[in-house]
Amino acid sequence: MDLSIFFAGTAGSVPTVGRGMPAILFRRGGDKLLFDCGEGTQRQLLRSVGLPEINEVFLTHHHLDHWLGLPGMIKSFDLRERTAPMTIFGPPGTKQLMASLQRLIGKPRYRLTVVDLEPDAIVEFDGYEVHVLRVRHRGEAYGYAIIEDDRPGRFDPELAEKLGVKPGPDFGRLQRGETVNGVRPEQVMGETRRGRKIIISGDTSPCDMIRLAAEGADVLVHEATFTSEERERALETGHSTAKQAAEIASEAGVGMLALTHLSTRHPPRAMRDEAREVFPNTVVPRDFDTIEVPLPERGEPRLERWEPDGDRAQPVTP
Amino acid sequence: MDLSIFFAGTAGSVPTVGRGMPAILFRRGGDKLLFDCGEGTQRQLLRSVGLPEINEVFLTHHHLDHWLGLPGMIKSFDLRERTAPMTIFGPPGTKQLMASLQRLIGKPRYRLTVVDLEPDAIVEFDGYEVHVLRVRHRGEAYGYAIIEDDRPGRFDPELAEKLGVKPGPDFGRLQRGETVNGVRPEQVMGETRRGRKIIISGDTSPCDMIRLAAEGADVLVHEATFTSEERERALETGHSTAKQAAEIASEAGVGMLALTHLSTRHPPRAMRDEAREVFPNTVVPRDFDTIEVPLPERGEPRLERWEPDGDRAQPVTP
Repeated sequence: MDLSIFFAGTAGSVPTVGRGMPAILFRRGGDKLLFDCGEGTQRQLLRSVGLPEINEVFLTHHHLDHWLGLPGMIKSFDLRERTAPMTIFGPPGTKQLMASLQRLIGKPRYRLTVVDLEPDAIVEFDGYEVHVLRVRHRGEAYGYAIIEDDRPGRFDPELAEKLGVKPGPDFGRLQRGETVNGVRPEQVMGETRRGRKIIISGDTSPCDMIRLAAEGADVLVHEATFTSEERERALETGHSTAKQAAEIASEAGVGMLALTHLSTRHPPRAMRDEAREVFPNTVVPRDFDTIEVPLPERGEPRLERWEPDGDRAQPVTP
Repeated sequence: MDLSIFFAGTAGSVPTVGRGMPAILFRRGGDKLLFDCGEGTQRQLLRSVGLPEINEVFLTHHHLDHWLGLPGMIKSFDLRERTAPMTIFGPPGTKQLMASLQRLIGKPRYRLTVVDLEPDAIVEFDGYEVHVLRVRHRGEAYGYAIIEDDRPGRFDPELAEKLGVKPGPDFGRLQRGETVNGVRPEQVMGETRRGRKIIISGDTSPCDMIRLAAEGADVLVHEATFTSEERERALETGHSTAKQAAEIASEAGVGMLALTHLSTRHPPRAMRDEAREVFPNTVVPRDFDTIEVPLPERGEPRLERWEPDGDRAQPVTP
C-alpha cells in the first residue's frame, strides 16, 4: 500500500517566497491526514496535489503558524458542500481554540469534532495508529508517531502442501492463524513483517520522547529551525538545530531524516550540510516535495521533487 | 506622483490555483494602504512586490475571506521587529474582531490601533482622503473612495512677469494664493486640476452609494462574484453580477472598471465579456496585476500584467 509524506509548507514562523507555513499531508492508500495547517495551506494543496477531503487534522501545538490555515479550510469545505465529518486532534486546549474560532467563522454544516488528546493517546486507523509524543516546546506541544500494524509473515504454499494441506480454503485458514490437519501456522508462515513507522516531531527542542519513538523509524521528520550557530537561541525558543535533529536521527537509527520548519535566518543548504555531517541520509524538502515510503522489503524511502510551474507545482520528471 | 492599485488576491470566498483571497494594495508615492487581507495575503505580497511595512489596513467587512490574513501578517511584522505603528480600519465591530483575535495571537510589540469607522467617516492622508461608502452586503459592509486633493492650476510665469511680478519669491507667493503688486493669483493660475479618484466597492449588491461615489472616478474596482446567469443568487448573497458592475461603471462614467472577487463558478473571460457589452473599458485583473493611474492630464489608467515565474511573480515585459 502506498504511503507518502507530502510537504505542503516547510517554513517556520514566517513564510518566504518559496516556503509556506507548516503543513504535512500524510497519505496511505486512500487515507489523508493533515499534520498542522498553517496559513495558506488550502491554497498550497490546490497549487499541487489538489485540496482533498481531509477527514483528520492533527495539530502539534497552538502557536499561530501551525493552525491559521484551519478556519479558511473549514469554510472552503463548507462552501463546497462537504458532508463527510471532520475531526481535529490536538493537545489540550484544542477544543477551546476551535470554540474561539467558531465564534468568528460560524458553524460548518458538516460535523466537526474536536478532540483534546491526552499525552499518551493513540488514535486508531485501519491498518495503522497515530501515537501522541509529548515534546519540549513552549507550552504543551506534541509530535506524532504513525505506526503501521505488523503484517503476517509470508505464507509458503509449497511447504503447506508438502505437509499435507490442500490448496483452497485450508490455505486461508492457515494464513488467518488456524491449525489445519495438525499443521500449525508458524510452520508455513515466515516471520511477522514490521509495518512502517513515520515520526513527525512538531516544534521541539531535542528530546528523549522523539529519540525513543524514532527507534528504527523509516522516516523522521524533525524540525530544524536553526543551525548550530544559534544553538542558544534554539534552546531559548524551544527549537532544534539541524545538528541536534541529525544526532537524534543517528541515535535512533532511522532510515531517513527530513528537516522542516526552517527559519529564514539560515539557507536550507547550510541546514542540510550541517545535518549530513552527523547523519548522511538527511533531506531538506522544499514545498511540494514528497517522501515516498515503500514497504521495507521493497526499498528505501526516497524524496521526490516537485517544482512550481506557473501557479501550479508539478512533479519533476527525472 | 505615482498611484497604483495592486491586486494581491482576486478570488472571492475560496481560493483557486491562480487566485488568492481578497487583498488590494493601494500605493501612492511612499504610502501603502491595504484594502482587505484575506488568508495568505502576506505570502502573495512576498511572491510579488515584497511585503512592505503596511501602516494602514482597511477592512470592507468581517466575513472570514476578507481578514483571515491579518493575524499572520501582524505576527510576521512583529517577528521582524517592526516598530512603526499600524492602524486597522473597518466597519463597527472591527475592534471587537481584533480583540477576539488578539486573545489568540497575542499582543504585538508595535502599536496596533483599531478604528471602527462610522458610515460617513473620512480618513485623511497627506494629499488624499479615504471616504467610507456604506454598501449593501450581508451585515455592515463598506466600500471605500480614495480621493486625491485637487491640485492648484498651472502657474503662467510669462504672464505673471508681463503683469509686473518679478521672478523669485513673489512667484511663490502668487502660487500659494497671495496677491502680489495688485496681481491676483487667479489671473496667473490655470483652473484647479482635479485629483484622482479610485473606488473600491468591497462586497456588495449594486447600490446607489457606489454609483454616486464613482461619478467620474478614474478607476472603479467593483466586485463581480457571478455572471447574469446567477443574478438571483447574486441578489440573495449580497453580491453583484459582472453586468451589474458594468452598468454602474457606465452610469457613473468612470475611466476604467476592474472586476474582482471572482467566484470559481464562472470563468474570468465570461465575466469580462459580459461586462464589456455594457462597459467596454473593463478589465479582470489576475493576481499580481497592477493598474497604474497617471495624473488625468498625463493619460488613462492602464492594466499591467504580472506573471508567476516559479514561486515569484514578475512583470510581463511587453
